[in-house]
Amino acid sequence: MIEKIDHIGIVVKDLEEGKRLFSEGLGFKMTSEEISEEFNCKIAFFPCGEVLLELVQPIGPGPSQEFLDKCGGGIHHICYKVPDIDNAVKKMNKSFTLKDQKPRPGANGSKVFFLAPASILNMETEFVELADKEE
Amino acid sequence: MIEKIDHIGIVVKDLEEGKRLFSEGLGFKMTSEEISEEFNCKIAFFPCGEVLLELVQPIGPGPSQEFLDKCGGGIHHICYKVPDIDNAVKKMNKSFTLKDQKPRPGANGSKVFFLAPASILNMETEFVELADKEE
Repeated sequence: MIEKIDHIGIVVKDLEEGKRLFSEGLGFKMTSEEISEEFNCKIAFFPCGEVLLELVQPIGPGPSQEFLDKCGGGIHHICYKVPDIDNAVKKMNKSFTLKDQKPRPGANGSKVFFLAPASILNMETEFVELADKEE
Repeated sequence: MIEKIDHIGIVVKDLEEGKRLFSEGLGFKMTSEEISEEFNCKIAFFPCGEVLLELVQPIGPGPSQEFLDKCGGGIHHICYKVPDIDNAVKKMNKSFTLKDQKPRPGANGSKVFFLAPASILNMETEFVELADKEE
């Protein structure tokens, strides 16, 4: 059901510093940047093979800010790409507790949901069905 | 220089529970399992697209146990695959502090080194050059 890892979310205190270290230091190329009103954060994307590395700086209260306060930032979540988000909700409900009982809108027309970390090894885990144009 | 993500390390309290959740819950297939004397841990591997998910249970003192104590486990490190580990050491030394000034032996004949998390956004970051047979 899971096709691949869509992206890995990395929470940072300072997005400009993160962008500099990822481009000049690691040699990645940034492909896009956005602000998420829903998650109260600024985001920059760096492709690495088939996976996107997503740098996330909180700009207000929310899960990213909580993680920054608790652990000082770092690797925050893994997002798995699935072909059918409603089917994924059904299957994941059998083994895990879901934060969202229904998929909700993600970036660029995608649909997403999250598992409750306590039910999956203290891992922040997201699923995404991308919009057709992105497939 | 970085070709792709080789693996993502996930620290768990109980490897058997982790294996069950990853196989029965997420639907992944375990391909191998090993004990690392050097890092004091038990490891199980689950491929997901071009990336390996590496479940790690500490069996004694070491970085995995420290992370478990501090953050309760979860996503721990990203390991990048490079073609030439000595060249990677040289390049990374320009921008980051290295935990290892020389590559050291990893699993299955590979060579690895780690960055100091404080120099890269509080992320545990590893680099690996795989042995020829695995390329």
